[in-house]
Amino acid sequence: MKAAIVGTTGYGGGELIRILANHPYISIHSIHSTRDEKPVSEEYPHLTGIFDKVLTKIDTDKIADEADIVFLATPSKVSGKLVESFFKKGIKVIDLSGDLRLKDASAYEEWYKHESVDTSILNEAVYGLSEWNREQIMNANLLANPGCYPTAALLGLAPVLTEKLIEKNSIIIDAKSGVSGAGRSPSMGTLYAELNENFKIYKVNEHQHIPEIEQQLSLWNGEEVKITFSTHLIPVTRGIMATIYVQLKEDLNTSRLIDLYKEAYDGHPFVRVRKNGVFPSVKEVKGSNYCDIGLHADSRTGRMTIVSVIDNLMKGAAGQAVQNANIMFGLEETAGLKMIPLYP
Amino acid sequence: MKAAIVGTTGYGGGELIRILANHPYISIHSIHSTRDEKPVSEEYPHLTGIFDKVLTKIDTDKIADEADIVFLATPSKVSGKLVESFFKKGIKVIDLSGDLRLKDASAYEEWYKHESVDTSILNEAVYGLSEWNREQIMNANLLANPGCYPTAALLGLAPVLTEKLIEKNSIIIDAKSGVSGAGRSPSMGTLYAELNENFKIYKVNEHQHIPEIEQQLSLWNGEEVKITFSTHLIPVTRGIMATIYVQLKEDLNTSRLIDLYKEAYDGHPFVRVRKNGVFPSVKEVKGSNYCDIGLHADSRTGRMTIVSVIDNLMKGAAGQAVQNANIMFGLEETAGLKMIPLYP
Amino acid sequence: MKAAIVGTTGYGGGELIRILANHPYISIHSIHSTRDEKPVSEEYPHLTGIFDKVLTKIDTDKIADEADIVFLATPSKVSGKLVESFFKKGIKVIDLSGDLRLKDASAYEEWYKHESVDTSILNEAVYGLSEWNREQIMNANLLANPGCYPTAALLGLAPVLTEKLIEKNSIIIDAKSGVSGAGRSPSMGTLYAELNENFKIYKVNEHQHIPEIEQQLSLWNGEEVKITFSTHLIPVTRGIMATIYVQLKEDLNTSRLIDLYKEAYDGHPFVRVRKNGVFPSVKEVKGSNYCDIGLHADSRTGRMTIVSVIDNLMKGAAGQAVQNANIMFGLEETAGLKMIPLYP
Amino acid sequence: MKAAIVGTTGYGGGELIRILANHPYISIHSIHSTRDEKPVSEEYPHLTGIFDKVLTKIDTDKIADEADIVFLATPSKVSGKLVESFFKKGIKVIDLSGDLRLKDASAYEEWYKHESVDTSILNEAVYGLSEWNREQIMNANLLANPGCYPTAALLGLAPVLTEKLIEKNSIIIDAKSGVSGAGRSPSMGTLYAELNENFKIYKVNEHQHIPEIEQQLSLWNGEEVKITFSTHLIPVTRGIMATIYVQLKEDLNTSRLIDLYKEAYDGHPFVRVRKNGVFPSVKEVKGSNYCDIGLHADSRTGRMTIVSVIDNLMKGAAGQAVQNANIMFGLEETAGLKMIPLYP
Repeated sequence: MKAAIVGTTGYGGGELIRILANHPYISIHSIHSTRDEKPVSEEYPHLTGIFDKVLTKIDTDKIADEADIVFLATPSKVSGKLVESFFKKGIKVIDLSGDLRLKDASAYEEWYKHESVDTSILNEAVYGLSEWNREQIMNANLLANPGCYPTAALLGLAPVLTEKLIEKNSIIIDAKSGVSGAGRSPSMGTLYAELNENFKIYKVNEHQHIPEIEQQLSLWNGEEVKITFSTHLIPVTRGIMATIYVQLKEDLNTSRLIDLYKEAYDGHPFVRVRKNGVFPSVKEVKGSNYCDIGLHADSRTGRMTIVSVIDNLMKGAAGQAVQNANIMFGLEETAGLKMIPLYP
Repeated sequence: MKAAIVGTTGYGGGELIRILANHPYISIHSIHSTRDEKPVSEEYPHLTGIFDKVLTKIDTDKIADEADIVFLATPSKVSGKLVESFFKKGIKVIDLSGDLRLKDASAYEEWYKHESVDTSILNEAVYGLSEWNREQIMNANLLANPGCYPTAALLGLAPVLTEKLIEKNSIIIDAKSGVSGAGRSPSMGTLYAELNENFKIYKVNEHQHIPEIEQQLSLWNGEEVKITFSTHLIPVTRGIMATIYVQLKEDLNTSRLIDLYKEAYDGHPFVRVRKNGVFPSVKEVKGSNYCDIGLHADSRTGRMTIVSVIDNLMKGAAGQAVQNANIMFGLEETAGLKMIPLYP
Repeated sequence: MKAAIVGTTGYGGGELIRILANHPYISIHSIHSTRDEKPVSEEYPHLTGIFDKVLTKIDTDKIADEADIVFLATPSKVSGKLVESFFKKGIKVIDLSGDLRLKDASAYEEWYKHESVDTSILNEAVYGLSEWNREQIMNANLLANPGCYPTAALLGLAPVLTEKLIEKNSIIIDAKSGVSGAGRSPSMGTLYAELNENFKIYKVNEHQHIPEIEQQLSLWNGEEVKITFSTHLIPVTRGIMATIYVQLKEDLNTSRLIDLYKEAYDGHPFVRVRKNGVFPSVKEVKGSNYCDIGLHADSRTGRMTIVSVIDNLMKGAAGQAVQNANIMFGLEETAGLKMIPLYP
Repeated sequence: MKAAIVGTTGYGGGELIRILANHPYISIHSIHSTRDEKPVSEEYPHLTGIFDKVLTKIDTDKIADEADIVFLATPSKVSGKLVESFFKKGIKVIDLSGDLRLKDASAYEEWYKHESVDTSILNEAVYGLSEWNREQIMNANLLANPGCYPTAALLGLAPVLTEKLIEKNSIIIDAKSGVSGAGRSPSMGTLYAELNENFKIYKVNEHQHIPEIEQQLSLWNGEEVKITFSTHLIPVTRGIMATIYVQLKEDLNTSRLIDLYKEAYDGHPFVRVRKNGVFPSVKEVKGSNYCDIGLHADSRTGRMTIVSVIDNLMKGAAGQAVQNANIMFGLEETAGLKMIPLYP
């Protein structure tokens, strides 16, 4: 299988190379960027001697002709435009941006503050939360790869939401992300001297991942779900932790809930549920495609605390994208994704 | 005024020296530790040439005779014992541990897992949340310095709690702390290689600061308040952020709430309320005694998000202890505490 | 005494505010920037409520009329231009850039790659290495504040250079700096995700501080000195360590050399020489104006290793600038600079 | 091929698991530790579900019977003892400690401060610097895996040393290491709060890697070589940079020297020589087995600066150990070691 990567010089694109350069069945046919033509190892010297392919301009016709699948690691808005030109050309597309995730174009425009992709295209896009949408993904030609925060939050909430065990409007998600999520473009706010020895909250009640999470939760729950969602910057490069608070409808203890989660994720190699009393930390998934979950029900308050961690560039972006490509091509779901977390 | 510091070699003790060595009215008379007698600058080389006093054994009689006030920067349990011997000797005591904070000895024993100080002593202790207990602190001889998390959480919640504007059982506090809060004793869990590039949650629903926060909230609210409280380790040395979620009883917008907070903290030099749309980060208070607060009310959910940040070693420990000493001695509240946050 | 700060929004300017806002004799009269007029606390929220003065345009006439001294925390080239207009107006000037440091205009142009300030002005400028140039500084009207690396390197080398105890061409300086030295302008190379968990070398044998160090060493030695000098980026915000290797002319042991250093820095409150077997770390001077030095002579090789650490924004920039202002005004050298290192 | 790992719970042991769990030809037969028998994933939760083997006691007979090779990731002294018991049992041994590296037992005792392994055993041990000792390694039964610093330093120096292009006593190695090199045992000096935002020098002229480096350099040079060697702690988890300064015997420019290095490392997949003007950073090899080298000759001083970076747990320990095992077993040298650096 031949893959093209568009938007290669960002962190998502770099991570796609790290995965696909060692993938047993998918090879990188071409890499594209709006920058000058040069070996990608000039942008990413760590690839020297490992992967020295030259970046080329984005020629959608040529890409569609030559590759079996294209990964769009481009920013929101750019992705949308590219999707429109790839769409009719019969090439499978996985878009890592937010442009295909919301089914409701007007919600997209409200939260993203620019025009949505046409509804006809949105309707074709499958939301690629691999563990919960496998059937649809198998048949998808156009895949909306989930956002980093939504992946962590949704995998943490799915078992109790689908089972309707919680008060639907009690959900509070306190999310924390490493800085690579902000991308590789220079900005004062992401300078080392600003973030080191710091911890910031941002986009309070305004993050564009809110409607993405709510859309999926509402689908699972059958009724509209509204959440409170906060995002913070952790001074680490990689890693997301979502600490999630929900009100249980009935009195369930931690052990029963853990059993429920283990069952829900049985057969899903990338979700690991911790045992009672143990919680995952972000470094325990660093560099890997795992989502680790721990939880605790508090009898004092009737609330459950769910902790879900991922590597934002892996399960939160490039890793899940490749997992979805594997599913779309009928490959083993873990192909190319067997890297063990880099600890310490 | 002459101060003695007991438990000097921990981070709290070191911070007391940093403050008091430059204090205009309080001088450090003696420093004590269970370690060998040696200049404190052998434990803390950054003090070389600035403060080279020798650590001496803890002789409570001698300390009580010579000093006007003693700061106990000792661990829980050790502090309790020392308080008992200092108590009757007429010296003012500020205890930085948790041993005097809970009025209910049995709650103490449940959460701290060892015996409480005698109730007769607990009854004498004033809870030193400087901004809200100033009157009592002025007359205190025995002061329970608040915990780091409770300081951040309570200052963030006080204005809406005392005004009864929120549903009392809706409070969720997602707290994050720098690693210095874990102290200077070696342990695998706080090694650099374990925490760097990591983010951990710990003591989920089990932290001993839960009853301390609930005790004060219940006092303000008039009825028992139960909270959900989580603590995380941020890979920074100093700093706490408490992200607090509460359900508003009525529809109040962000501007009105900010006005309420500004009023509540008018005349309190160490609490700074950010303007609408702006939130504090932990580095904006580093090395200083400030507590900075930002907030936002979300009309979609009726919830308010409150963000409160402090330096855990300053407003969360040694800084507030000195602020309380200033109040107890009738000094200007900011004496010795005018250091500007170290940014970047 | 009234000070104006030009170039306030960079890290050097921010640090000047941190120092001068609490200075007992020098007050900040005005702050200037090429940005919009707005309170500096919008650029630096940590100053909210502490120092809220408004940034104004750079009007050299007005500044010269109203202030007693102007601190130029502007970039190289901008500083040079400003110096030319301030020079004849009778206001004392301290320039934190490299524009006045090299006496040889052609060397400046070779290393800085743009035009030098006029030689007539260079001749008026005093090189402000406070500990070794105090006499000249007392009478200076135009002061070239030393670079961060040169300060650490020169203070480490001065005692053996002035005593001619080392082979003059044996000097190798392996220097490491925190990232704040690179300033607050956005660039990919100083993004958090690029520098965290990283360590880089840069400008190998090409750093513009080479001629500055050589100029002073040659003056001390009486003959031309050439050095090898490397600079690295440490993933910390503040701090410089210069590890210096020199060949001793004769066999001197560590103790004798330490004595020599202690003597050389006797009466200099900001230089602290560690005892035999102990070396300073950068955090032991963080936030303070100290330069700490440790050393060891190796009888196996006849070489001495000298370790010199400073906070690059303090003794390496704003701190030394204020120290120099104190000397120029005949104030106590430590005025406003008594802050204790922030440890941990 | 079946491998046993002894000393599994340290960072070196953990890294051996990360590599060997995915190795195409070598499987992990058993893991051993002096701790309680329990799944290694209780010590290293990141291995949960990936590698859950139980730690067992160290039974040298059983290990020698069942495994083809044993990796000793035990501390110095412990390794020595184990080697003595494994030696006669016909199992291949790779020792990651320093116990077999020095051929001169008395030098070992001087620098390590405890008794050496018997000389008869030392004589059997092959020094496993893979790129320069491949022939001997192929036939080795007992392998002394090089130290982390020596690996970086020796790979950086080999081409000019073996060609005798430098003054043999001019070598100065300024080395910097991430904190994982200090191991997983709790100690105050490696606590997060002590090392974060810090940079330290340690063991100045006293590091036990000095004789190891000198032994190999002397072998290459034909005459005794003495070096100056300093070690620093960088606040990162992984990574070593050795910045090396040497005096060239004749005037060679950077391009010629780079050509020499490229030739020397031609056919060695794990050494990458950067082109003129470009230097490697430690993050460019993180998590991989690469050693990246950059260099520059300075015509002003006749000195060359060589920069060599590795991941201390990979090429500096477990990675090189597996590379050596591959060579010993006649496998492809890169088997199991194709992981791409984790950037960013």
